[in-house]
Amino acid sequence: MKGLWFSELQTSTLKISCMTKSVLCSEQSQYQNVAVLDTLPYGRMLVLDDVIQTTVKDEFIYHEMISLVALNTHPFPRNVLIIGGGDGGTLREVTRHPAVEKATLVEIDEKVIEASRKYLPQIGSAFDDPKAEIVVADGIKHVQEHENEYDVIIIDSTDPVGPAVGLFSEDFYRQVHRALKDDGILVAQTESPFFNEELVSSVYKSLKKIFAISKVYLATVPSYPGGLWCFTMGSKKYDPEQVDLEKIPPLNTRYYNPQIHKAAFVLPNFIAELLK
Amino acid sequence: MKGLWFSELQTSTLKISCMTKSVLCSEQSQYQNVAVLDTLPYGRMLVLDDVIQTTVKDEFIYHEMISLVALNTHPFPRNVLIIGGGDGGTLREVTRHPAVEKATLVEIDEKVIEASRKYLPQIGSAFDDPKAEIVVADGIKHVQEHENEYDVIIIDSTDPVGPAVGLFSEDFYRQVHRALKDDGILVAQTESPFFNEELVSSVYKSLKKIFAISKVYLATVPSYPGGLWCFTMGSKKYDPEQVDLEKIPPLNTRYYNPQIHKAAFVLPNFIAELLK
Repeated sequence: MKGLWFSELQTSTLKISCMTKSVLCSEQSQYQNVAVLDTLPYGRMLVLDDVIQTTVKDEFIYHEMISLVALNTHPFPRNVLIIGGGDGGTLREVTRHPAVEKATLVEIDEKVIEASRKYLPQIGSAFDDPKAEIVVADGIKHVQEHENEYDVIIIDSTDPVGPAVGLFSEDFYRQVHRALKDDGILVAQTESPFFNEELVSSVYKSLKKIFAISKVYLATVPSYPGGLWCFTMGSKKYDPEQVDLEKIPPLNTRYYNPQIHKAAFVLPNFIAELLK
Repeated sequence: MKGLWFSELQTSTLKISCMTKSVLCSEQSQYQNVAVLDTLPYGRMLVLDDVIQTTVKDEFIYHEMISLVALNTHPFPRNVLIIGGGDGGTLREVTRHPAVEKATLVEIDEKVIEASRKYLPQIGSAFDDPKAEIVVADGIKHVQEHENEYDVIIIDSTDPVGPAVGLFSEDFYRQVHRALKDDGILVAQTESPFFNEELVSSVYKSLKKIFAISKVYLATVPSYPGGLWCFTMGSKKYDPEQVDLEKIPPLNTRYYNPQIHKAAFVLPNFIAELLK
């Protein structure tokens, strides 16, 4: 036997199944079931409440793209806040960026950090980085308690169900705006434009009310429903499409590059329609 | 009961399953099993030998992108050949392009055309178009019998197993080169850069030997394995990245637009690596 099938219901009528060699851990935390599986198609995989969060094979796409577009839009992204992101992949990208001096990770569920540290060392490699500060707390509270402090805030949340619901609300984005400096940038993962059109539309419209600049960009993350994935940026001053691509520092990346930075903002018509 | 699950093995260890309301047809042809399912996540779906070919919900992405990039790279794409593409979606895009005068579809399996005509009328809408000529024959033979004739040849094949194997060989690409006019363009669907790296690499390298210009471009087709999908172009004269975007005719599209034409050629590092 090669293994058993792990299945995720991507929508109520669409399922993805991965042949799985072993379950490295599966534990109920205060918030959710936290599991790490060793799968054949995607390697090791973090699964929260039966939903794939990140996999060793394709995590580089999501983590580079949620981090580097904002970090290379802001000219001095010294102080960065990551909300969620307990697997540590975003923290890895942020801490290895040459301009970043401090990266604070605020994850509500300590069990996620523990599982990643133990079973996903390639992803959770930066928890002990000198630039990193790890806070186990509610991201919403953390943001409320800070004002005019961060250059970049990255909302690296789970899907908008369970503990993450509040991270997709307009109220929360207003608090994030307040926690950012006068030229700060917010970026959030905002789901599939194919299966979650309303969310893509509503987050964009919320950020447009609050920030001078609001834009959606895309990357394809094979292990996510339909692959195609949205990230939404709210920026007080800097336009991600006006970045001087020549000034982007050399980075050791597998997906992102300066031309991708620009091309990611080019939207197919059906996605542009969602933002009207 | 909402329906039963139709499952496709996307690789030997990765499976996608779609809740299915009904099987509209399922018939063994001379070449393969030809089925049309009515699914909940993707609407009606053409399935050949248990592999998803196209779905009503996302077909526009694949069909626009396999057709319009080449048609808008060539300044006068009057005479177009489609090899495969029995569902008719590519034929629809080609016949509605204002510059095209004639579109010849060469499909080996008549049952695919019949099934699409009957059960997928939105996709198979151009079989009776005055510009269209439908030929039920082996595309390889058809290409061998034509020389210096076509402006654009589109290889809209199934995966490189069964009847389509020959459509991915260097010999065949040389025949296609011969069937094209002196400034002709070939474009082929060339699978997933994530799950079929070797094929992406080998087709690109074959075309680079044969054509003055060889390039890979991308689109995300949600119902295909991992979503991210490659198209490979071989061009005798015109560079798809040097097109004057202002001159692209207005087209009623849902994915493609002039900026997408350009952005589709920007490759993430891990794909650029495959082409070295």
